[in-house]
Amino acid sequence: MQFNLKEAIEILERTPQTLDYFLSGLSEDWLLCNEGQGTWNVTEVIGHLIDAEKYNWIPRLEIILQKGENTPFPPFNRFSHLNDDLKMSMQQKLFVFKSVRKQNLIKLKELITDEVQLKLTGQHPEFGSVSARELLSTWVVHDLTHMAQIVRVMAERYREDVGEWSNYLGILKKI
Amino acid sequence: MQFNLKEAIEILERTPQTLDYFLSGLSEDWLLCNEGQGTWNVTEVIGHLIDAEKYNWIPRLEIILQKGENTPFPPFNRFSHLNDDLKMSMQQKLFVFKSVRKQNLIKLKELITDEVQLKLTGQHPEFGSVSARELLSTWVVHDLTHMAQIVRVMAERYREDVGEWSNYLGILKKI
Repeated sequence: MQFNLKEAIEILERTPQTLDYFLSGLSEDWLLCNEGQGTWNVTEVIGHLIDAEKYNWIPRLEIILQKGENTPFPPFNRFSHLNDDLKMSMQQKLFVFKSVRKQNLIKLKELITDEVQLKLTGQHPEFGSVSARELLSTWVVHDLTHMAQIVRVMAERYREDVGEWSNYLGILKKI
Repeated sequence: MQFNLKEAIEILERTPQTLDYFLSGLSEDWLLCNEGQGTWNVTEVIGHLIDAEKYNWIPRLEIILQKGENTPFPPFNRFSHLNDDLKMSMQQKLFVFKSVRKQNLIKLKELITDEVQLKLTGQHPEFGSVSARELLSTWVVHDLTHMAQIVRVMAERYREDVGEWSNYLGILKKI
């Protein structure tokens, strides 16, 4: 096991600003392209990251710390952001993401004051007993997976344009 | 075809600063982890991006514009950065990457003054005739593919730590 709270926070505190720097001011063609019907564009991915900040990580951590396995996590709707997607501009979303993440990291540091708390467990609605350590590791890898998704969605836009080079570009290989 | 020089430059000019923001100050465990024997860590990926700036994109564009298909591109050694990998710190590499990219974008704008130049072609040593448009599209997707690689390498570090959540995290799925 590699998880370490300090190192996890290093990633969590960098993600919003990194995405803000990368995505601010990009042409709409980059922000609104997707990988085909039913897939998310970059703007929608940021909406999902905001929802996860609001309804997933810290609320679930609080359930683990305060109630343990007696109270299963409420399910997290991974598609809820699609309902209010038109209401905020990309710039607003990036601002909100930075802001909720900042608040959540303050909260995280208040909640976890002793490494031993990382072993506490809660009840995931689908796969049962999970630890605080697993939840926090997942928070980090969730950031990384959506950063990977963002650049993959953007790369897809140039799939035809790169010609023969597509064989050298791992990001264009379909899983 | 989606390629558009202005939009391509939007990505090319953001990549180094984005990586600088994301990677500066990270613990060595993040910067030196890899996906197993023979794979690159994050520091090595930045070394490769620097090499591509020096020996690939602009030199090949110049061959296309000045010599056409008569002079095949010299092969690009995708592993040459591994030879001098110990000589520069991550911070130095990020600085060099930002600096060579900035110079190359100035050069790009000097070299391409008319969209019609994008149709000019050169001779790739492996797959024959390629256009300036394909080369420049590849430059962009190459940035995106290595950004995806960087976050994938980092995510790998927590593969075991996330427990059952690994099934939900696309970045942990092996291609």
